[in-house]
Amino acid sequence: MIVAGFQAAGLAAGIKKKGGLDLALLVADHPVAAAGVFTRNRVKAAPVLLCQRRVRSGQALAILVNSGNANACTGPQGKRDARELTREAARLLAIPEVAILPASTGVIGQPLPLDAIKGALPGLVARLRPEGLPEMAEAILTTDTRPKTVFLQENLWGHKITLAGMAKGAGMIHPDMATLLSFVFTDAAISPPVLKKLLQQGVNQSFNRISIDGDTSTNDTALLLASGRAGHPEVMDVAAAAPFAELLNRLLEDLARQIVADGEGASRVYRIVVEGAASVLEARKAAATVATSPLVKTAMAGADVNWGRIMAALGRSGARFDPEQVSISFGPHLVAENGQGLGGAAESAARDLILAGPFTVTINLRAGEFQDFYHTCDLTEDYIRINASYRS
Amino acid sequence: MIVAGFQAAGLAAGIKKKGGLDLALLVADHPVAAAGVFTRNRVKAAPVLLCQRRVRSGQALAILVNSGNANACTGPQGKRDARELTREAARLLAIPEVAILPASTGVIGQPLPLDAIKGALPGLVARLRPEGLPEMAEAILTTDTRPKTVFLQENLWGHKITLAGMAKGAGMIHPDMATLLSFVFTDAAISPPVLKKLLQQGVNQSFNRISIDGDTSTNDTALLLASGRAGHPEVMDVAAAAPFAELLNRLLEDLARQIVADGEGASRVYRIVVEGAASVLEARKAAATVATSPLVKTAMAGADVNWGRIMAALGRSGARFDPEQVSISFGPHLVAENGQGLGGAAESAARDLILAGPFTVTINLRAGEFQDFYHTCDLTEDYIRINASYRS
Repeated sequence: MIVAGFQAAGLAAGIKKKGGLDLALLVADHPVAAAGVFTRNRVKAAPVLLCQRRVRSGQALAILVNSGNANACTGPQGKRDARELTREAARLLAIPEVAILPASTGVIGQPLPLDAIKGALPGLVARLRPEGLPEMAEAILTTDTRPKTVFLQENLWGHKITLAGMAKGAGMIHPDMATLLSFVFTDAAISPPVLKKLLQQGVNQSFNRISIDGDTSTNDTALLLASGRAGHPEVMDVAAAAPFAELLNRLLEDLARQIVADGEGASRVYRIVVEGAASVLEARKAAATVATSPLVKTAMAGADVNWGRIMAALGRSGARFDPEQVSISFGPHLVAENGQGLGGAAESAARDLILAGPFTVTINLRAGEFQDFYHTCDLTEDYIRINASYRS
Repeated sequence: MIVAGFQAAGLAAGIKKKGGLDLALLVADHPVAAAGVFTRNRVKAAPVLLCQRRVRSGQALAILVNSGNANACTGPQGKRDARELTREAARLLAIPEVAILPASTGVIGQPLPLDAIKGALPGLVARLRPEGLPEMAEAILTTDTRPKTVFLQENLWGHKITLAGMAKGAGMIHPDMATLLSFVFTDAAISPPVLKKLLQQGVNQSFNRISIDGDTSTNDTALLLASGRAGHPEVMDVAAAAPFAELLNRLLEDLARQIVADGEGASRVYRIVVEGAASVLEARKAAATVATSPLVKTAMAGADVNWGRIMAALGRSGARFDPEQVSISFGPHLVAENGQGLGGAAESAARDLILAGPFTVTINLRAGEFQDFYHTCDLTEDYIRINASYRS
C-alpha cells in the first residue's frame, strides 16, 4: 500500500486512555493537489475550521491527525491548540505551517493533551516512510473494531495509477466520539479544482449515502491528495477525469460499506433503494427516512419482514406517492404490492434472505422516474449498551 | 369518571391474539359538537380517512374503536370494512351511519376480523352506560402497560364543567402497532368551529411535543366531543373559550406526559427546552432534534451528562447559532457555557438529577427570543428487545 510521493507514520502519543496508536502524520515530497469535504454540522471542531480554510488553496504538503480527542466544543483554546500543533509539525518538517491539514477524532468537549502530542511529534517525523500508510490507517481509529482501507491500481491514460484510501468509523459510534475521517492518496495528476469536484461527487454517492444512527458528527472530514507522480499530463477538466472518477468512486463506496459493516452493534447490513419517486429530492428523503427509522432498524435486527413499518416511514418522509401503488421487495421477493401485503410465503423467503447476509430492500413508489439509495445497518441492543455506558 | 350526555362500553371481541378488551363504543344521547386531529403521515389507515371526512360536519353521535388491528395498508377491502362496521353499529343504535366516527390501532397490514367484530357489536351496545369510560380507556390499549386517563372538573361561566380524557401509547410501540389515539369528552357547550380550533392548539402543545422514537404512525387520531349538557350558553368564539382552553390544555398535557412515561422501554422521562432561538421554527427544530437524537437518548439511559452530544445534535438541527455562545443546564446545574464544558462538579450534580427522576434540560442558543420544548424518554435495550421481536 504505497503511493508515489507520500510517506506516513503513526504512533502512540498517549491521547487515548486505553492506549494504542493515536497520532499520525502524512507528508508529501512536494506540494500536491488537495481537496476536502467537511461536516455540515454547525458545531464544527477546531481542526475542521482550520483544515477547511487551508485546503481552499488547493495545495497541501502534510496531514496531521489524532484520535482519542476530537478537539470539538473546546472554545478559543481548542483553536489555538490546533494551530500550535501544525506550527510545531511545520517547524520539524521545515515546511510552511499553512501546508499542514489537521484533523481530530475522539472525545468531544475536552482540551487536547498538547504537551503529550508535541512531545511525540519528533518521533513521529522520524518514523515517516512510504510503507507507513497502514500504520496511519490504524492510528486514526477510535472504537472501530478494524482498520478500513482500500488499495486500487489501474492503467489510465497509458500510465499505472494508484489510489490508497483509509477511513474511520461513522455514527458518532462511541458516547462522544466524533466521527468519520477519510483520507485518500493518489499518484494521479489532477488539477485542484477538478480534484475538488471529483471528491464532492464521490463523497455524495458514498459517505453521504450511509447512515448508522442519523447523528452527524462535529468532525467529519474527507481529504484527497494527488501527487501527480504517475507521469501522465495533468488532467484539467472533469470530463477528461471520468476514468479516474470511476476508480475513486469505487474506492469511496468500498470504504463507506466497510464503515457501515463496522457500525456500532450492527448485526446486519442492508441497502434501501427507492425507485419511482416524483423527484430526486423525494427519492433521497424516502430512502433516508426508511434507512434511519428506528422501527425499521429494530425490525431488521429481529429479521422481521415488517413492510408495514417501511410504509409508515415512507408516509412521513415527505415524498409524494399514492400508498395504494407502492411495492416493496426484499431481494427478489415481492412482499407488498399496491400497498398491501402478499402474505406468508413471500415473507418467509424474505426472512431467509435477511438471515443470510447483506440484502437490498427495493421500494417502488410508482410516482415518477427518480431513484436513490442508502446503505445502513440494523439497530441492536449492543448499540444501546455501548452508547449508554458512562464516558469515564 | 362520568360526563353528562355520554355512555360508553368496552369488551373482548377476540381481535387481540393475546385476549383482553379490544372493542369500544361511545354514544352521545344527542348530536354533539365534534372535532378531530389526525396523523400527517401520507399513509393513513382506512378508519382515519373515514373519520377525517365525517368529523368535518362538526357533529357526531358515536365513536367506534378497536385495538389489536390498525386496519392500515389494507387497500380497498380495509375501507369497505371500516364503513361496514359503522353501518352495522348505526343499524343497532338506530342512528345515521355518518354520525359514527371510527378509529383503529394495532397490527398494520392485516385485514380486520370483520365477523368477530360484527358478532360482538350487539353485546357492546347492550353494555353502554355512563360509567363505561374507564372500560373504553382499557379497550383502546395495545402494548401500553397501563390505561391513561384524566378527569377534571372546574367552575366556568357559573357552571360546573367536566372533562374526561383517555389516550393510548405513542411511538408505534410494538413492532407494528399504530399508535396514538386520544378521546376527550366534555359537557361544556362549545360551537364546532371553536372546538376544532381549541383541539388543534391543545394537541400542538401536547401530543405534538412528545417523541418516543421519531416514527409517525398511520393511525394517530385525537377526537374531542362536547355535549353541552353543563347548562351554560354555547361558547361561540375562541377568546371567550379561554378558560375552557386552559382546562383542555392541562388535560392534554397530562395525557401526553402519561404516554411518554409509558414509552417503550423508557426508564427516564425528561423535557428538552430550547431558549434564545432566532425563530419559532428554529426553536422547535432544535428541541425536536435533541429530543429525538439516539445518541442523546442513549446517554440519558446511561445517566451520562453528555452535553457534547447535545451540541452535536443542535449543530445538525438547522437552527442558526454561534456554538461558542451556547449554554446547557440540567435542572439548575449549568454544565456548559459559551459552548464549553464546566467540568466535573457540575456534571456530577447533573448526573444525580438524572438518576433522581423527571428532569429538564435547558439549552440557551443566545441567538434570539424564541423558545420551544419537547417531552421525551430515554432509549434503552428494552426498546430494542421488544421492537426486534418477530411479529408472530
